[in-house]
Amino acid sequence: MTALDRVAILGTGQIGTMVGMALRAAPEHGVMEVAVWDRDQAAMDACQQRAGSDRLLDEPRGALESDVIILATPVAQIVELIQELGPRLGPGQLLLDTGSSKQVVVRAMRQFVPETAGAVGGHPLCGRSELGPWAADPSLLQGATFVLCPVRADSPSLRTARRLVEMLGSVALELDADEHDRLLARSSHLPHLVAAAIAEMSGEVPTRALFSSGLRGAVRLARSDPAMVASFVCANLDEVLAASRDLCLQLDRLLAAAASGEEHLVAELERARLRALQVGVN
Amino acid sequence: MTALDRVAILGTGQIGTMVGMALRAAPEHGVMEVAVWDRDQAAMDACQQRAGSDRLLDEPRGALESDVIILATPVAQIVELIQELGPRLGPGQLLLDTGSSKQVVVRAMRQFVPETAGAVGGHPLCGRSELGPWAADPSLLQGATFVLCPVRADSPSLRTARRLVEMLGSVALELDADEHDRLLARSSHLPHLVAAAIAEMSGEVPTRALFSSGLRGAVRLARSDPAMVASFVCANLDEVLAASRDLCLQLDRLLAAAASGEEHLVAELERARLRALQVGVN
Repeated sequence: MTALDRVAILGTGQIGTMVGMALRAAPEHGVMEVAVWDRDQAAMDACQQRAGSDRLLDEPRGALESDVIILATPVAQIVELIQELGPRLGPGQLLLDTGSSKQVVVRAMRQFVPETAGAVGGHPLCGRSELGPWAADPSLLQGATFVLCPVRADSPSLRTARRLVEMLGSVALELDADEHDRLLARSSHLPHLVAAAIAEMSGEVPTRALFSSGLRGAVRLARSDPAMVASFVCANLDEVLAASRDLCLQLDRLLAAAASGEEHLVAELERARLRALQVGVN
Repeated sequence: MTALDRVAILGTGQIGTMVGMALRAAPEHGVMEVAVWDRDQAAMDACQQRAGSDRLLDEPRGALESDVIILATPVAQIVELIQELGPRLGPGQLLLDTGSSKQVVVRAMRQFVPETAGAVGGHPLCGRSELGPWAADPSLLQGATFVLCPVRADSPSLRTARRLVEMLGSVALELDADEHDRLLARSSHLPHLVAAAIAEMSGEVPTRALFSSGLRGAVRLARSDPAMVASFVCANLDEVLAASRDLCLQLDRLLAAAASGEEHLVAELERARLRALQVGVN
């Protein structure tokens, strides 16, 4: 079984820093060293300040000395890092990522990580719309769902990944990468674009006085990091396109109900309200 | 000038109760009596408990003894009440409503309220997604925008309505009804339908474990009262249809940018992010 003595985190934005903080906060788990790297020196310094990481890496390859390498950059860079580091991974090492799109990641892992090493696609469902290491709040990992997408069947690396997820206080949920991407397109990726579209349309409203609390809620996701959102949307474009078509059909259905009589729209909205209540309250 | 001694509130849901509480909480404004009516006896009782209203009315026509009549029901009932009460209004009386769609209301006021009486379309931009008199929080009126839509040019009733809005602690914003409806379709009515559509799509997601905080924010408006939402959507259907078409075009534009390269989507999202930051934080 893979040791968890030394962990490297590449990408020290909100998620990478949060993971580093959670690992350092629980020394009883036995992680001896947390090494970090980011192409942005300021983000790396901030992560070290917050997580108390033991080592700053000069370059991503420095991570190859660690037992577990966690890729927490935007998805496009995750794929690049898999290409760079994957072929150099040795037996017993584990590569895990935290990106929001999983098919491209798992495909790259399958291609570039040798079978002797381990690789698992990961996606912690937590985080805030604020950006960077200073927005990291490790308590958000507590009880959060951490999706794990197998790269190869019956891989022992899944067990290691599960141990790591437990150490973070999160709850592992195993899901195939294509199923993850189909569902996340609907529950997350498209909602980010919708919030951006509504925000863009709010530009027609000539005065702040007409901005309601409802609108503020509707555009909240549009305050997310553009690079991060673009990265997971572009890495999951087919599913996001399909979800967008579904959304516009749903809107057409609601508007057709409205046109055929208020009571028909009420019935549709009653059903949607029950769904919304199931989704829960922030 | 219209006296403000006696105010009647028809419809004691969240907004009607909130208005009643705000009027009773500030006796220095000189409102001597707040009478209330709702077709739901329990809602009327709850409003009386919370606002300490002086009189429960047996029927809407009881409001004709008041100086100011505030219609705070869903929009379709507002129009019915204008038809019933409007022709019976006398000199110096003011009819004001709180509905979210204003063209149908202002049109009905123009048709049914005699020129000797006064009528103004109103829309306070505040409230929560929770329903009913127990969700009323008069502090939400403090500093909130209260749109006033003139029914007739140079009407003295606008001055009375402005005084009432000031008494509530809100900020009056004069706007033509058609402009109000065009803007609100984009900033509020369509976002309610979008939240419902996303909530409906979340039904495909098989486990609560995949519901993120982003999704919870995106479906928040779908927890609103279906009757209320259906009422203002159906009363503003042309503008909501136009806004829906705009939204789907915006989504297509974002997806086309994504297809042409991640950096193009980043640029679009950067712009939307600035808009979202202008809209502000809840």
